[in-house]
Amino acid sequence: MGGGISEPYARCPMSLSGLLAAAALFGASPALAETFFVKDQTEYRDALKQLEPGDTVVLADGAWRDFEIVFQGTGEEGAPISLTAETPGKVIISGQSNLRLAGEFLKVSGLVFKDGFTPTSEVISFRVDADNVANNSRVTQVVIDNYNQPERQEVDFWVMMYGKNNRFDHNHIAGKRNKGVTMAVRLNTEQSQENYHRIDHNYFGPRQILGSNGGETLRIGTSHYSLTDSFTVVENNYFDRADGELEIISNKSGNNVFRNNTFYQSRGTLTMRHGNNNLVEGNVFFGNGADHTGGIRVINAGQTIRNNYMEGLKGTRFGGALVVMNGVPNSPINRYHQVKDAKITNNSLINSDNIQLAAGSDAERSAVPIDSEFSQNLIFHDDGRDVFTVYDDVSGVAFAKNLISPMAPPDFAEGFRSEAIALERAQNGLLYPESDVGAGALRDLDVTTKEETGVAWYPKLEPIIAFGSGETIKVSAEPNALFDAVGQANAGDTLVLKSGDYVVSKFLKIKKPLTIKGKGKVNITFERSALFEILDGGSLRLTGVSISGRDAPDNAGNAVIRTSPYSMLENYRLEIVDVHFSDMDVNHSFNVISAAKGTFADSILIKDSSFRDVTGAVLKLDKESDDYGIYNAEYLTISDSIFENVQGALVDFYRGGTDESTFGPHFKLTGSTLTNVGGGKRNKSKAAIHLHGVQVTNISGNVIKNSEPILINHTVGEPKSRIVNNTFINTPLPNNFELNSGLEPTAVIENNEVKTR
Amino acid sequence: MGGGISEPYARCPMSLSGLLAAAALFGASPALAETFFVKDQTEYRDALKQLEPGDTVVLADGAWRDFEIVFQGTGEEGAPISLTAETPGKVIISGQSNLRLAGEFLKVSGLVFKDGFTPTSEVISFRVDADNVANNSRVTQVVIDNYNQPERQEVDFWVMMYGKNNRFDHNHIAGKRNKGVTMAVRLNTEQSQENYHRIDHNYFGPRQILGSNGGETLRIGTSHYSLTDSFTVVENNYFDRADGELEIISNKSGNNVFRNNTFYQSRGTLTMRHGNNNLVEGNVFFGNGADHTGGIRVINAGQTIRNNYMEGLKGTRFGGALVVMNGVPNSPINRYHQVKDAKITNNSLINSDNIQLAAGSDAERSAVPIDSEFSQNLIFHDDGRDVFTVYDDVSGVAFAKNLISPMAPPDFAEGFRSEAIALERAQNGLLYPESDVGAGALRDLDVTTKEETGVAWYPKLEPIIAFGSGETIKVSAEPNALFDAVGQANAGDTLVLKSGDYVVSKFLKIKKPLTIKGKGKVNITFERSALFEILDGGSLRLTGVSISGRDAPDNAGNAVIRTSPYSMLENYRLEIVDVHFSDMDVNHSFNVISAAKGTFADSILIKDSSFRDVTGAVLKLDKESDDYGIYNAEYLTISDSIFENVQGALVDFYRGGTDESTFGPHFKLTGSTLTNVGGGKRNKSKAAIHLHGVQVTNISGNVIKNSEPILINHTVGEPKSRIVNNTFINTPLPNNFELNSGLEPTAVIENNEVKTR
Repeated sequence: MGGGISEPYARCPMSLSGLLAAAALFGASPALAETFFVKDQTEYRDALKQLEPGDTVVLADGAWRDFEIVFQGTGEEGAPISLTAETPGKVIISGQSNLRLAGEFLKVSGLVFKDGFTPTSEVISFRVDADNVANNSRVTQVVIDNYNQPERQEVDFWVMMYGKNNRFDHNHIAGKRNKGVTMAVRLNTEQSQENYHRIDHNYFGPRQILGSNGGETLRIGTSHYSLTDSFTVVENNYFDRADGELEIISNKSGNNVFRNNTFYQSRGTLTMRHGNNNLVEGNVFFGNGADHTGGIRVINAGQTIRNNYMEGLKGTRFGGALVVMNGVPNSPINRYHQVKDAKITNNSLINSDNIQLAAGSDAERSAVPIDSEFSQNLIFHDDGRDVFTVYDDVSGVAFAKNLISPMAPPDFAEGFRSEAIALERAQNGLLYPESDVGAGALRDLDVTTKEETGVAWYPKLEPIIAFGSGETIKVSAEPNALFDAVGQANAGDTLVLKSGDYVVSKFLKIKKPLTIKGKGKVNITFERSALFEILDGGSLRLTGVSISGRDAPDNAGNAVIRTSPYSMLENYRLEIVDVHFSDMDVNHSFNVISAAKGTFADSILIKDSSFRDVTGAVLKLDKESDDYGIYNAEYLTISDSIFENVQGALVDFYRGGTDESTFGPHFKLTGSTLTNVGGGKRNKSKAAIHLHGVQVTNISGNVIKNSEPILINHTVGEPKSRIVNNTFINTPLPNNFELNSGLEPTAVIENNEVKTR
Repeated sequence: MGGGISEPYARCPMSLSGLLAAAALFGASPALAETFFVKDQTEYRDALKQLEPGDTVVLADGAWRDFEIVFQGTGEEGAPISLTAETPGKVIISGQSNLRLAGEFLKVSGLVFKDGFTPTSEVISFRVDADNVANNSRVTQVVIDNYNQPERQEVDFWVMMYGKNNRFDHNHIAGKRNKGVTMAVRLNTEQSQENYHRIDHNYFGPRQILGSNGGETLRIGTSHYSLTDSFTVVENNYFDRADGELEIISNKSGNNVFRNNTFYQSRGTLTMRHGNNNLVEGNVFFGNGADHTGGIRVINAGQTIRNNYMEGLKGTRFGGALVVMNGVPNSPINRYHQVKDAKITNNSLINSDNIQLAAGSDAERSAVPIDSEFSQNLIFHDDGRDVFTVYDDVSGVAFAKNLISPMAPPDFAEGFRSEAIALERAQNGLLYPESDVGAGALRDLDVTTKEETGVAWYPKLEPIIAFGSGETIKVSAEPNALFDAVGQANAGDTLVLKSGDYVVSKFLKIKKPLTIKGKGKVNITFERSALFEILDGGSLRLTGVSISGRDAPDNAGNAVIRTSPYSMLENYRLEIVDVHFSDMDVNHSFNVISAAKGTFADSILIKDSSFRDVTGAVLKLDKESDDYGIYNAEYLTISDSIFENVQGALVDFYRGGTDESTFGPHFKLTGSTLTNVGGGKRNKSKAAIHLHGVQVTNISGNVIKNSEPILINHTVGEPKSRIVNNTFINTPLPNNFELNSGLEPTAVIENNEVKTR
């Protein structure tokens, strides 16, 4: 690595008096280093004009609202100009604020960005404008917490590095929920190329599923400048459930190092998307068996992947534990360059489901990996599955001294030996063979822990509050009692409704995770155009009640449950178990569940429920019709339920666009009965179930009667659709179309029974 | 009329001391009438429990937030229980509040509902719940001002009358902007039928165009109970620009009286939609030549339309000055009942463009008017036009003693004489022949003026602030100067931009009507995903500038001008004159103007402007894709402009649904040149101009070259589309489809030149 900042880094927070004392003691060069304690923006701007090398500006504790911090100056090596907090963590930069640095030898520390969002496109930028960047500068111990644009799909960036020799370390970066990569290194002008930045010891906290492109946590470069070297070191960072999209890190430049980072239960992969000669070593991936957890994806020339550890990764296809891609011959800069001179050695792949070689092979991507090595890797899987998928000729890869256990060696190459081994967890938290087998990650692999990253003075909170984790509150059928109870409940609480008829005259606004549970015979009617409105921060589990739409207004477009008309930054969860819906027919287009644009469900679960006499759709998840690759829900899972006389579709589920940035949506329907579904004249799709761009579909064990056909439009990616073991009575078999590829339909439609009555 | 409340009504506001004095003087029966002065909701509820006939509750001056007023009690004739304000107009009911009355002989006065919205579906309801209504009760001198649901398309009702013998008078009801009839009389249970309500001297202030169904100002009944008599009297009210939708008043019950109301420049008609034996007399309609101003539409049996005055009404078709419909034989209750025994006498129709007879005649509506009379009407039109359109056999109407001037008598019937007459404006503001001609409205017609309605203590404000009506402010190209100027400007101000390059790094949020005008050479680029965001209350006139998209983020879906992602209650205006757009191509789907769902433009005007290199559409007005009959703009007018290399359509303009409740949208394109428009692969319509459900289209005098065809989908109503005198070079002729009627295309496509190069 290059000329990063070398001063020793004190992990302990330092009080103002401590700082002043430190300044007094060490502020030797130049002799007159000053500390400016400022209490408002005017004082800050005045101080800024006077700064000389070694000087420090201290922001007073408290909330600084709407503060666009321009920190520009010229420090010297060993005598930076500093901006810090009176007390780290007690200076809150809120409202519409941001930080821009330009100059030399600057240091910023101790600030917290929360309760607001940047008015420009960046929260922290290592430049003031296109001409003025920062060099030899450091941002450390800064927090950015849920500092999101109000609109989920509005794009911005939390940290953008320009210039050279900058360091970004020990920061806490959590809860980005709107579109745009969390942090990026730009190489867009010469003054930002071959930059020798260091990005280390940062806590990249949970980033929820974005549900579209633009959810990467870290990107180095862009395709346009990807043949330029960056010389950026990314080390000892902790990526905690960085689930934004299918790239956790998108490397798009050359000669970078990714070392000793921990990826904790994060969907997606560290992707060597563009650029050559990068080193990926000592990284640890814990998948914990979660869906779509991946490892490393290798593209381009000269990549070294060594001594990495992957455990419990369930990712498939391009999102596997280890993926070596095919390239495009003479690839344009923004397509796939051939893998060449790759060295993949001493990696451990433990209980990880997929290793993909020559992945993506097709008519365009026909350049197979060459001059590469795959050696001394350890591949172990408890259930003995065949983890390898080989899509093309891999004779350009030299396989040697790999150990596979307990499975038999693969048949596509030599260089694997199989051996029954036992694993034990070592001091560093990783699994190793009980005895040395000469393969896999090294014993001394330094595993970066959560505690070693970010700052000690800011909590690393869990992102989700579980249903039923709070109090239980009894509610009776008095007027307004349910409304009041919903308003007063705390996150995680359960409202238990006593037997009775509940006439609800106001919207029940769900702003927190709540459970509403009927005890006895609970009948609910409602007088507004919806019964429940899930607002930002809300999630709902509804169980044991009957809901009739008969008192709803004579109005087209009512719904029982709808999401906020405003953008929801937080993903929500909706569970409906043992709920019985009827009389959704006072006017046309009465939907049961209707998702608004700009809202996203992590999961919608329906079980043991019934839906009768609905003039609209049961689930309307099709509001992202702009075809920007955005959609409304990640997992929709329905089991053991009854749908009868539904004029619209059971579900309209839409994921438009043609980018391949998301794992979802997913749809599963099992053990259910559909009767007279989809036949209404306003049902545009003319389908009982309408899936457009859904990535994973499983429809099995259902009875579908007197209904319109199922319609599955595949648009992009390699969607997996299975419709098996169903009974279709007086209902056509499903239709499947490949809208963009022009290929033959790929849905598996088999073992279904077809009857006429 | 029936047993309305007979006590004399004091127009003067009365102070608390005056009230107390009055109570002391007149509070004789029962002897112990009390006044309860209450300062908060608890005191109010305590007082309520103690009320006896003759008692008064006085709300203290000030803001009462989130106050759901239940006013329930049993007064006596001559000794009502009253609820009033300490000072009329100084008691502000705000936040989530409403008023429900139930009982007998109640009186409410002096309150102002503003700065909030009802949490239930009604602001003022003459019932507490389905079982408890109010009778013999009065709401007077109450204001409801812009008390709208935050969501434009959320349905609610401001005043809902239930029970019997109630009076609603001298109220000020202005600015309803969300969906739902402003005021309605319900007949849904026996206790609310034959109700003898009186609705009088109310000021129904401006109601802007809703852009969908649900914008009526007053409705009496519903189709379901329309054969029931209501005996409601609607008199001396002032309807000021009641433009919500095509019915100003929708009568849907029997034996009502509409008398001496003034309709000032209101789009739509007083519609006898359902129910028989109603009397419409002495009403005055001033159209002022505004688009879609109408008069009276006659349907059903036994309607008397006499002594009404219509002037300057420009409405066409069902929205004409006087429309007599055909019915459906044996009509279902919700279709059109035959006109029978109609008496249409002594009406004046002055400079009003359309009288329609047997209107709506078609295969279904084949029952012509019978046993009817059309006599002693005066029809005068300055420009001598033939105002009559007769669609079917009108021999069932006896025409007699009508005077028409200066036109020749119509040829479909006798009973008209033509005479050259001169009109003069009389004391009452109406035009009459200089000498008595024995036809037309009576000389003594009592014209209700604005001042006679509502209350004296609340202003009747103009709804629109004009562009250029404020200050002029000079702005230079310094960073943030334009942003700051936009933030600081007042409504109506003009920002004059000096020559220079403006790099705009933040959204320019337009919250007021503003003009932005370039002086000299003004070049603007922007770094966020949009340059301008028009927010609620904002309107923009932009002129004399050049705008490039080259600095916009590498992000799909950018726009130069977009509307609020949140619902906009206020309709906006957008004018673009002499503005030159280029480089809208940093990523795909870059639109120039993009309207969000829930936002509505009264008008969008583009003139003398150019649009080059656009990857999206120039105008995206297609976000109301739910097919609820909602749309994004009323008038889109483009002239003398250039469109070059536009991958999307010039405009995607969408009005879905099949209801006939709106006059718009309207589209006009003249004198413009289109080159390479519509050919992008993401342009779903594959059209250069995509109009769906547009009601009025005029495309003439344009040159359209190397472009996709124009696509016009007619969906509902009798849309008028004319595409004439254009030159199509290497571009197919327009396509027109009738999507629902199954009829032949009706667009007029003629006198166009077609060339291959």
